[in-house]
Amino acid sequence: MAQSTVRKNDQKEQERHPHVLTLPLDSSQTDREPHSYERWLVAKLMRMAGSPPVCFQLWNGELIEPESDDARFTLHLTDPKALYSLVANPNLAFGDLYSAGRLEVDGDLPELLEALYRAIHNARRQWPRWLDALWRNHNPRSTGISEAKENIHHHYDLGNPFYQLWLDKAAMQYTCAYYERADLTLEQAQLAKLEHVCRKLRLKPGMSVVEAGCGWGGLARYMARHYGVTVQSYNISREQLAYARKKASEERLDHLVTYIEDDYRNIEGQFDAFVSVGMLEHVGKENYRALSELIKHCLKPNGIALIHSIGRNHPTLMNAWIEKRIFPGAYPPSIGELMEICEHGEFSVLDVENLRLHYAQTLTHWMQRFTENEEEVTEMYDDHFTRAWRMYLAGSIAAFRAGSLQLFQVVFTHGDNNQLPQSRADLYSFPAAQ
Amino acid sequence: MAQSTVRKNDQKEQERHPHVLTLPLDSSQTDREPHSYERWLVAKLMRMAGSPPVCFQLWNGELIEPESDDARFTLHLTDPKALYSLVANPNLAFGDLYSAGRLEVDGDLPELLEALYRAIHNARRQWPRWLDALWRNHNPRSTGISEAKENIHHHYDLGNPFYQLWLDKAAMQYTCAYYERADLTLEQAQLAKLEHVCRKLRLKPGMSVVEAGCGWGGLARYMARHYGVTVQSYNISREQLAYARKKASEERLDHLVTYIEDDYRNIEGQFDAFVSVGMLEHVGKENYRALSELIKHCLKPNGIALIHSIGRNHPTLMNAWIEKRIFPGAYPPSIGELMEICEHGEFSVLDVENLRLHYAQTLTHWMQRFTENEEEVTEMYDDHFTRAWRMYLAGSIAAFRAGSLQLFQVVFTHGDNNQLPQSRADLYSFPAAQ
Repeated sequence: MAQSTVRKNDQKEQERHPHVLTLPLDSSQTDREPHSYERWLVAKLMRMAGSPPVCFQLWNGELIEPESDDARFTLHLTDPKALYSLVANPNLAFGDLYSAGRLEVDGDLPELLEALYRAIHNARRQWPRWLDALWRNHNPRSTGISEAKENIHHHYDLGNPFYQLWLDKAAMQYTCAYYERADLTLEQAQLAKLEHVCRKLRLKPGMSVVEAGCGWGGLARYMARHYGVTVQSYNISREQLAYARKKASEERLDHLVTYIEDDYRNIEGQFDAFVSVGMLEHVGKENYRALSELIKHCLKPNGIALIHSIGRNHPTLMNAWIEKRIFPGAYPPSIGELMEICEHGEFSVLDVENLRLHYAQTLTHWMQRFTENEEEVTEMYDDHFTRAWRMYLAGSIAAFRAGSLQLFQVVFTHGDNNQLPQSRADLYSFPAAQ
Repeated sequence: MAQSTVRKNDQKEQERHPHVLTLPLDSSQTDREPHSYERWLVAKLMRMAGSPPVCFQLWNGELIEPESDDARFTLHLTDPKALYSLVANPNLAFGDLYSAGRLEVDGDLPELLEALYRAIHNARRQWPRWLDALWRNHNPRSTGISEAKENIHHHYDLGNPFYQLWLDKAAMQYTCAYYERADLTLEQAQLAKLEHVCRKLRLKPGMSVVEAGCGWGGLARYMARHYGVTVQSYNISREQLAYARKKASEERLDHLVTYIEDDYRNIEGQFDAFVSVGMLEHVGKENYRALSELIKHCLKPNGIALIHSIGRNHPTLMNAWIEKRIFPGAYPPSIGELMEICEHGEFSVLDVENLRLHYAQTLTHWMQRFTENEEEVTEMYDDHFTRAWRMYLAGSIAAFRAGSLQLFQVVFTHGDNNQLPQSRADLYSFPAAQ
């Protein structure tokens, strides 16, 4: 079914954005001498990227050292056209060439990417406008109702067995865990995240909760089991919902939890709590006002809402490769853009917590398990897919470590709700991790 | 010195904004029969204000009931010109007429104002543009360096003996306290606030702190005494600084704390922490970018910054009467505008906490003490001054209760700082109140 998702997607991309694709491999060129202007191009590229501690090895084995002699990583380019692709569209080509095996990395992949991100971030301040335009993401996809379905299907319907290989066994959480203590296991930290979210919502037995985007339904089941609330969870990924319903039935929670296959925009009714963990990234800025109005309508007068989302320190387009190859239509909002959702609905923001380094740790745990299961992944899909996902996980670790991505949990309520907790001490009265 | 601040200010106002002043009292009119169009005007005014549960008593004793029969308060107007002033500029005239004793209130003043704010807030959505313009604040004052001095002098140099009548005895805090438990005294809650701020900054002995706007210097002395840090505190209120320096010397903290009489814009050096409690309200939106750049420069790579400020759920001009009569140049930013300070400096927002109802409680405690000392206040100034301050304190209680004002504590750091606390549990490991 999803065996050749990446390849098919390449073809689609070619139709939509022919100019952004990497140049095809020409095998006759892979051991010729580099031209002097090719060496110049590499040096130029490295300066553009802020002179990261990286060495380039060209197709013939020739090494090009960085200006400073602190190279901790080597990037190996297998052919001249890989170099041209990288220069023409560095942001997108880096991931594509790596996935295709035409760019190889010596050294720890997340560490290399963190060093690259930090160097580029600093260099960027001095870039001329044309260079900034070269690195920017072009034509991010739409997030209208029909496109949203396609975007979500592209990623979340890769097959549950694939995600089971490397997500936690406790609750199948594909979102940032909460490492209340640094030494928690992935399973402990994911359950601690669910607990932390429930505490922030101040759930009490008998309350009603609506969830926008529920993944494999772990949070809804946790809420029902541990807090005795009823939950309506919306999702448009069919594979995830099938899993969620089966689990709820096995765990005899289906009288409390209802999984609904529908777009969050169709939520109806009024609830004591609104929760959305890891969906906002897919909502798209153009839909924030509608989301705000939706929450306004579906939240009871004293209800509490929580949005958990990847975010930014300031507005920035999604990395082109991630947005085109991994998460079509994704956009992590800046903290200010997130606040627009609250301002538009005249909500009162009660609490914002940034769990940035918790996501770096979550991803590190995911990547460890993914690496252990790479052979199986390649059997399920192909080598291109495995390398693309390795790049995606490593790049995400790097982005959270380098501070280009944040993880915000925002708690808010109606502006005139005076039934507020006295302080946040109740969130910490005993450990969230069991 | 400040004996007739309000009166002098009236005169200045008249020069600058003659149209916004209330019409002078004409004693010959105070017991004549109201005209029928005057009754119509009252009814119109009440509908404009969203039909609050308020009854009007006119100068001749005649009562005008609200449409709904739930009147819990009576507003007594002493003369026809008071009515005309109220209709022409309701926002400003309400406070001015009350201060002048030409508008009297039967019922609890904060409760009346809360009811009014809630009614007006709801009615406002349906207002035509001209009506909105009528209620808006016109010509708020500038916050340039020279005006800032005048603005701050107007309020904070009223004389320390005045503030000592009703602020806490523990630390002379003229900012929101932290009622970790609802039953704390004002003194306990103010010390708990100082402790909460220190914990959020993760202070350790030997660290250096810079404080922008230090009031009577209580936070700086608390930090030095309890956390063994050095503090440089900036303020432009001479009276406050004299008090702060005297206290620091008495408490033998002057080797750790330096109070500097200068504008925050002149802060120099690099520090482990930047803190500003209750100053941002006076900074002015036009200076946010400069403030952001200042923090960027004065915060060490792993430093933590905290801004504690009155705020809004969405951008709104300051209440005209408060801005003109009490806090010249004040502007409480919306949460989004606050985030612009962080975004501009590429800071990473770590934590936002909203202490809205804590400020309502702080103000309630202040007003209790103020009320007990009204005779003395009137002796120090005059009846007009006492009534103006009673209105200001009551109006502030009402605004925090009704949700028109918020209190945000925002903690942030440089975008690439990875020396972050594992969680916020350390803020709550033992009570902040002693």
